[in-house]
Amino acid sequence: MMIPISDMMSKVRVAKPLVHHITNYVTVNDCANICICAGGSPVMTDEYEDLRDMVKLASAVVINIGTLNSRTVASMVAAGETANAEGKPVILDPVGVGATPYRNHVARILFDNVRFSVIKGNAGEIGILAGVGGQVRGVDSVSGGDGTAARELAKISGAIVGMTGETDYVSNGERTLALSNGHSLMDRVSGTGCMASSVVGCYVGACGASLESVASGISAFTIAGELAAKKSSGPGTFKANLFDSLYGLTPEQAQKALKCSEL
Amino acid sequence: MMIPISDMMSKVRVAKPLVHHITNYVTVNDCANICICAGGSPVMTDEYEDLRDMVKLASAVVINIGTLNSRTVASMVAAGETANAEGKPVILDPVGVGATPYRNHVARILFDNVRFSVIKGNAGEIGILAGVGGQVRGVDSVSGGDGTAARELAKISGAIVGMTGETDYVSNGERTLALSNGHSLMDRVSGTGCMASSVVGCYVGACGASLESVASGISAFTIAGELAAKKSSGPGTFKANLFDSLYGLTPEQAQKALKCSEL
Amino acid sequence: MMIPISDMMSKVRVAKPLVHHITNYVTVNDCANICICAGGSPVMTDEYEDLRDMVKLASAVVINIGTLNSRTVASMVAAGETANAEGKPVILDPVGVGATPYRNHVARILFDNVRFSVIKGNAGEIGILAGVGGQVRGVDSVSGGDGTAARELAKISGAIVGMTGETDYVSNGERTLALSNGHSLMDRVSGTGCMASSVVGCYVGACGASLESVASGISAFTIAGELAAKKSSGPGTFKANLFDSLYGLTPEQAQKALKCSEL
Repeated sequence: MMIPISDMMSKVRVAKPLVHHITNYVTVNDCANICICAGGSPVMTDEYEDLRDMVKLASAVVINIGTLNSRTVASMVAAGETANAEGKPVILDPVGVGATPYRNHVARILFDNVRFSVIKGNAGEIGILAGVGGQVRGVDSVSGGDGTAARELAKISGAIVGMTGETDYVSNGERTLALSNGHSLMDRVSGTGCMASSVVGCYVGACGASLESVASGISAFTIAGELAAKKSSGPGTFKANLFDSLYGLTPEQAQKALKCSEL
Repeated sequence: MMIPISDMMSKVRVAKPLVHHITNYVTVNDCANICICAGGSPVMTDEYEDLRDMVKLASAVVINIGTLNSRTVASMVAAGETANAEGKPVILDPVGVGATPYRNHVARILFDNVRFSVIKGNAGEIGILAGVGGQVRGVDSVSGGDGTAARELAKISGAIVGMTGETDYVSNGERTLALSNGHSLMDRVSGTGCMASSVVGCYVGACGASLESVASGISAFTIAGELAAKKSSGPGTFKANLFDSLYGLTPEQAQKALKCSEL
Repeated sequence: MMIPISDMMSKVRVAKPLVHHITNYVTVNDCANICICAGGSPVMTDEYEDLRDMVKLASAVVINIGTLNSRTVASMVAAGETANAEGKPVILDPVGVGATPYRNHVARILFDNVRFSVIKGNAGEIGILAGVGGQVRGVDSVSGGDGTAARELAKISGAIVGMTGETDYVSNGERTLALSNGHSLMDRVSGTGCMASSVVGCYVGACGASLESVASGISAFTIAGELAAKKSSGPGTFKANLFDSLYGLTPEQAQKALKCSEL
């Protein structure tokens, strides 16, 4: 099964989509930089007064609940509502949902108010949102999965669902892809999940939200991870090389390296 | 045209100026580290109760509006007023001004309450503040410039104006310098503009605000960028090398590499 | 004098302790990454509604006052109180205490409400808290020390005290260890003090709070710093290598490299 990752990568680089983020303060800088390396242009304002005008200029909005507070939850809702009204895709990264009641509560508020085009999380988070079980410890998944949770959540939510792990699954509820690029060092860097969501934001911003665009975004990032790992001696140099590798990745290389099958 | 960059670089390293920042949460860590590499000592508190005492200890204050919120805008005004009262230079980085009405509104509040010694922005931001036109997309400039906007804004504001781009311009309203060091990879890293402002904060903190000190700060940073690019394979390794290069740059190297002309 | 650093390092890597942080926005990403490289699992939520549930899942709590505001001070107290009630160790990093009245005020609030298992600071901060003098400039110490301040503060507070500097001292009030690993480049990277506290959080979370666990955490970090410096050409590459070195450090290497004596 082949997805047109090379075409989509070229589209992103031509469009240079402005991707608006409301995200956490732990990994925000990495999200900005990976967005640039993917071919997009990041913006990160989370002030209520500012963000609605910024969303109108953006091609996609990424909402990441890594470090929530009451001020930013209101901003997330406002950004999502504005994006919905403007017909712009919204990507949710439900970081740590299932770990605490507050995170579940915020997820409910977001789902009640915002229509998401894409939900991108780890197996624990997606399993919990799909109601098929899943376990989260802090912000890390402790459960794996076989794509069922992704498919179920896609059916329930109407969103394209990307579920990252050793194998990544992307589902639109009818079709489910299994993606097997990546490297174990990606788990040893804080925020690779957040970065994947930012890359998906670029792809969805430039190519629209589809099974193919979400899978292409995730795969571009994990293929870059494979290449970076070859040059790295640990998580610190890996992170620097990850930016280089995504930036330097050619569409042809990506298409050739892609490991994608349909379930 | 030669500016005494070597003397100024030596002064910064001897003085080790404490540079207080109220800045955005995207690039704050890079600002802290580049400040150390330039020879300064960074501090970043933005709590109203804390910052006035901290400003009194500092040699310069950098105000960066990258990620605004109502709490930090009040802090910016308080920090600026305190610095003005204490006779300490204040550097404004008007990130993304022109992109949204809120950012323009905040810029107006800041100009109404604080006297800036230096304004450092990209061509879009400086053009907008100068009232000569300019275009900003998210937080990136989409317009170039020939130094006119920098000169006009310097005349209107009374500040030294640094306008960064492929060529950087620095003007005090009467004299305008064109600086042509730098490398295109600097545009591929989030926050190089913010970092440039932090370096200028170190130079202005140690040497006072002048055409020469602002130009020296910008040039030290862009010369480091040139050196870093030679050792880098993309934006990730470039960022790491940028810190190394500024840290290791000798005054003699900088003076020799400097490309400065007067308009 | 030998401390069982190899055993403790192995314990941390097996336990993979969840370390909850309420920390500053300057160095938070580095704290998360160093925590992973030490063998722990970081979580950084600072919202009042969220953090009490998260603390219950965690093995240790790190409170770092680098960038305070009224919202996060309340969160620090709540996190500390919850950890105390749950019998979980709390590590305080009193960044910049002594620099401003507000920081002293916050330190007092914290000491009035929270029982700390460990206090980890630089010589200026520890000297001030111990009441034996000490000087802080911004967030940097300008005073050295011989271990007296660490011992005094340990006696007064009942906490294990780690005081970092060219020589690091760890004291429980009765016994005081001098640790002499490390490298001067550690002072040229923003947040190495914060990172040391996060590593200590991992060791205390996995091994309990003791003279040995605090000393092992600090030493693992400073030994990694020595190794990283050998491969680095400045602060930028040093930071990347520091993560690699801590991640790759073997218990045997650490035990062999350890420089520890009892005062």
